[in-house]
Amino acid sequence: MTEPRNLRDLLYETLKDIYFAEKQILSALPKMAEAVQSRDLRQAFRTHEGQTETHIERLEEVFELIGKPAQKKTCNAILGIIEEGKEVMEQFKDTEALDPGLLAGAQAVEHYEISRYGTMVTWAKTLGLDEVAGLLATTLDEEEATDELLSELAEATVNAKAA
Amino acid sequence: MTEPRNLRDLLYETLKDIYFAEKQILSALPKMAEAVQSRDLRQAFRTHEGQTETHIERLEEVFELIGKPAQKKTCNAILGIIEEGKEVMEQFKDTEALDPGLLAGAQAVEHYEISRYGTMVTWAKTLGLDEVAGLLATTLDEEEATDELLSELAEATVNAKAA
Repeated sequence: MTEPRNLRDLLYETLKDIYFAEKQILSALPKMAEAVQSRDLRQAFRTHEGQTETHIERLEEVFELIGKPAQKKTCNAILGIIEEGKEVMEQFKDTEALDPGLLAGAQAVEHYEISRYGTMVTWAKTLGLDEVAGLLATTLDEEEATDELLSELAEATVNAKAA
Repeated sequence: MTEPRNLRDLLYETLKDIYFAEKQILSALPKMAEAVQSRDLRQAFRTHEGQTETHIERLEEVFELIGKPAQKKTCNAILGIIEEGKEVMEQFKDTEALDPGLLAGAQAVEHYEISRYGTMVTWAKTLGLDEVAGLLATTLDEEEATDELLSELAEATVNAKAA
């Protein structure tokens, strides 16, 4: 077995990390949608659930393109972020602050993904893996759009209701 | 003891979370600076160490402004992100991919902070806590600038050396 050494190996390790993370997010989103009171926020979580399925398929395409098995690797970052969301759910259950708290948790998830996909796009470009870079950039755009939508929802309705 | 219920309580909980996170980051940055080969990246980590000290002082001002004790609360998200950085340090020690890996880890840290400070700025505004919002927005600007600097470093030198 060869030890991981170069940027291509690092890309593969990070793909396994985000593959794990996306699957965790997919299982967390329905619980978050169920917990919130705002219909708009619930709808945003459901829409993102569908997008997350697409992101997982896109990662599987990327694994194929680089000729490596689609494997997951425990991502402690996403586990920690989701854990914090669960704490908010327990601590602010049945209160007006639950929706802003879960919306904020979802934005922490988005920012983790934006950072990882952003990094992987530049690595793939550096390595001349243009098709891989293109697929990852499409997902990056969708994560950024979701984060913006959540910011708009927070400012337009969710926070004001809790103030 | 009153149970936390409203947006003001949620802001306080999140301040405790990021206060913990900033202190963890302050202790991780010197180890990251020591580990990297790129002088520019080492300098960026050292500069950010100084900024992080200021961010901690600013949070202490915020705790004073809202009349609450400056307390830390375990932030599982930052612990997870820092843990992933340590894994990269071990897995890619003495390889050309170490610098890009640690740079990416630092960007994951920045994005976590950007998400949390961004959220707290809008909550503080909603609550009419303008001075608090101003202090947190100053830190947010510095975290965003650090993230951009790291992106520039990655594209200009760090990744190319590892490709």
